[in-house]
Formats: sequence, C-alpha cells, structure tokens
Amino acid sequence: MAPTFPAFLCSLLLCAAGVFGQAYDPSKQLSVGIILFPGFQPLDVIGPLDIIMMLSASHNVSLAMIGKEKGPVRGPSPPRRNEPPTAYPVQGPSVVATHTFADAPRLDILLVPGGMGLRVLNENNDTWIPDFIASRFDELQYLLSVCTGAAALAQSGVLKGRRATTNKASWAWATQFGNGVNWVPTARWTEDGNVWTSSGVSAGIDMTYAFFKKLMGVAAANRIMNAIEYTPHVNEHWDPFSVVHKVPGADASRPLGECVGPAGFEFECS
Amino acid sequence: MAPTFPAFLCSLLLCAAGVFGQAYDPSKQLSVGIILFPGFQPLDVIGPLDIIMMLSASHNVSLAMIGKEKGPVRGPSPPRRNEPPTAYPVQGPSVVATHTFADAPRLDILLVPGGMGLRVLNENNDTWIPDFIASRFDELQYLLSVCTGAAALAQSGVLKGRRATTNKASWAWATQFGNGVNWVPTARWTEDGNVWTSSGVSAGIDMTYAFFKKLMGVAAANRIMNAIEYTPHVNEHWDPFSVVHKVPGADASRPLGECVGPAGFEFECS
Repeated sequence: MAPTFPAFLCSLLLCAAGVFGQAYDPSKQLSVGIILFPGFQPLDVIGPLDIIMMLSASHNVSLAMIGKEKGPVRGPSPPRRNEPPTAYPVQGPSVVATHTFADAPRLDILLVPGGMGLRVLNENNDTWIPDFIASRFDELQYLLSVCTGAAALAQSGVLKGRRATTNKASWAWATQFGNGVNWVPTARWTEDGNVWTSSGVSAGIDMTYAFFKKLMGVAAANRIMNAIEYTPHVNEHWDPFSVVHKVPGADASRPLGECVGPAGFEFECS
Repeated sequence: MAPTFPAFLCSLLLCAAGVFGQAYDPSKQLSVGIILFPGFQPLDVIGPLDIIMMLSASHNVSLAMIGKEKGPVRGPSPPRRNEPPTAYPVQGPSVVATHTFADAPRLDILLVPGGMGLRVLNENNDTWIPDFIASRFDELQYLLSVCTGAAALAQSGVLKGRRATTNKASWAWATQFGNGVNWVPTARWTEDGNVWTSSGVSAGIDMTYAFFKKLMGVAAANRIMNAIEYTPHVNEHWDPFSVVHKVPGADASRPLGECVGPAGFEFECS
C-alpha cells in the first residue's frame, strides 16, 4: 500500500495530528480476529492485542478470540511425539476463546500468532488454522502473522509469491512450509499487499505499531505507544536476531544496535 | 541486593556463561504468583509471564494465576461510576485464574500488574489485592509490580520508606496511595531491597529482564531475550515517558533516546 500523503509534507503538523496518512475512518466498525491454540506464545498474542485494546478506546473495534473450541485455551504446549515434555516451556496462561472457526464473525483483520503448539498441530496433521486462513482470506482487509504464525500462513497457500518473515530461532522449521514464498531472512517485519508478517515474539509489537500507523494515522498509533511506554523499532530492515540466530542469508553487515525513543518525539541517542 | 560478583570480572567469559552473578539454584523450585483482576492491563501480565514461561524450560518454576475467584478473569475493565463506559478500553482477553487469594500456594515471587480495573476496585473499597500482598509479604523472596500495580503495593503498606515508581501517564492517580513512599519520577524501574517496581506496561518486560538477570544469571536471562527477539532497555534511569507525560520532578535533562541491541552482544548504534 503506497503512502497516502507525500512524506515531505509530513514535517508539517498536519501529519502529526493524524489528519493525513490514515486509511481508515475511526467511526467505521473494525472486526479483528486473533487465533488461539494450545501452546500459543503468550506475547505473540498480547503484544498486538494490548495495542488493539488501547485503540478501542478511540475507535470502533470488535474482537473475536478464535479457537478450535470455545472456552479456555491452554497456554502450555501439548507434549510432542518423541520429545520429553520438559524440553519445552511448561508454563503459560490460559486465554479464553470467544469463538470457534465455525462461528467466527466476518473479519476485517485476522492475526495468527506462533508458538510451540503449532508444531504439535502439524505433527498431528491438524490443519484447522491454515484451512481457516484460506477460507477467510478473500473477506479480509488484512492478514497478519507474528513469529511462527507465518508457517500457518504458508501452509494456507496465501504466501505464494509474497515476501514474508518469521521467528529467527525457528527459521528452518517455519520456512519449510508453503510453495513459492519469498522468505526474507533479515526483517523485523514485512508488508506485501495486504499481508504483514513479523519476526519472533516481541517483533509483533513493532509490526502492529507500523500497521496501525498506516491504518489509523500516526497520531493514534503514537498515542498508544506512549500510553504503553513502548519505544518501537521503526525500521523494518533492522533485525539483529537474524544474525544472532545465524539465519542463512542474514545481512550481517547491518549494525546490531538501534537508537530508539518515544514515538512522535525528537530525541538524541544517549 | 548487592551484586554477587565484581563487575570488572564480568568482562571475562565466566559471567557470560552464567557461572557467576546468579543468586539462584536452577534445580530449586521457584513458586511464582501473578495477580489477576477484571480490567488488568494484558501486557503488564504477559510481558513478564512470557519471560517466566521461557525460563521454565530450563528452571524449575511453578506458576499460580491468582484472582478473587477461580476461572476466567475478564480483561475489559468494569464500568466506573460517573464515567461513560466508552471512555475506557473495552477490549481485552480473559485469562484464567488458577487460584484464589484464599488457596494460593506458598509463593517465592509475587507480581502485581496494573490496569484500569484497579481504579474500580478502589472506588468500590475492595481491598483484596493490598490485603493479599500484606498477608504474604513476609513469606515472599521478592515482590514485583508493573505499571499502576504499584498503587496496590502502596496501599498494602509495604512501600513505606521504599523507592518505587509507576505508570507515568497515571502518575497522579497511583502516587496518591501509601504513606512514606519515595516515588521516583524518572525511572524505568526501581529496586529497593526485595521490592521491584516498574513504570508503565511495557516497562515490566525490562524490569523482569533485569530481575531475572540478577536472580538466574546473565546467560539464562540473555538466552530468553534473544529467544523472544526483544532488545531490553538496561538502564533503570532511562525514562523518556516521565518527560512525555510531564511527571512532576521528571528529569528532562536526560536524552529521550537510547541505543539498544540484542542482549549479550557488542553492537554499534545505527
């Protein structure tokens, strides 16, 4: 999606006030769905969701938490075949699914998190998540994944011919799925048409900021960042973790550090 | 708590390997409790919890999610008296409480998140959270708060004579509680004896990193940061949000930006 307003004019206060640069009418209802499965990574879900929650104070947002079944979805990953259960994180909060894939409402935005539980679903040949993505893709305005959630997008077929990224520590596992996916090794997040994918776990917060900055305007997005006291990484190409986790093809020439500060303020690096 | 190893020796690989600098035996069981209430801020809970979950892959950690009642605790804040409900975030995930204050196990660590729901509890004179903190403080090794959770610590009396910080956008509300609290206006987090408090929402992730770095050693803490692809703020005095939100007494002379990079790696700022 091309910027809706020339960048040089954004130095004017008009952009800071969010008058331009947003693609969405705040009064229009926005239906958001988030996938849950046993063994989801909690921060994959809650990082973006905290931003969506704050946005709902000023925008007309509805939320469906979508599981295979309704009710609490266990955070801990189910045990995997041929692996001792202690090899994987055993703790995690149970979060309530308000809908199933069968009764989820019409969605404008669907977000697919990652987590160890995706491997269990895959080993069990349980394809409910890629099937749901494929069945709903045409109605969606935007499809977003965090972390290894991109593996489910790849399985669904919607990444064919698209740029995408995923968790850098689980790169080999996640990128085995899909045909014709242009996996980007060094990226905090990617945007290709109406599909956004982020790197691992906390990268979902940065992608969600960039996404809502484009959708709702910079003022609304910055207000939320400052309310949650988060300094987002704003360069989609900044990805030291691709180097840390030795992803094949990672761009090691980029500096690992980045200067960050509160959104919307001029700042010096200490 | 004083560092257990001289800082200058930490330039040796010994510290990077986590041999020194940790105060905890990984095989010893660590009982963690996290408070839940309707209207909790999701990221206050899940930021630290994601770190605790990852830690449980290598350390013997147990977790109790403690509510007033067992079962799903609603994320959305209950409506407040004299306020239109639309004035507050209406979305939020429901997370399951595994225990109540009456049957919670012995705890080594208790974490108290913030959120708009604390204001409702306060307006309703419902003191179950400060009462629980006061009743358990003597058995705890560490007490931690995120965001406006510090208000409940102040109400409980345990902050008397201690340094503490809280959410910078809700500073006036949260710091009205308690007697003899030394509220620190410019702090990403504070540590005073066995009580740690963080600034708003995402600051809880940085505090939790600093806390487990001290408790479990730098190697274990860094491994988790790199697994969740998070670049922590490591300077407890870095707090641009105290300036952004105009907290009385905030130190505006500090630069608002900070150079951050992956934990445990040398990096340049871009």
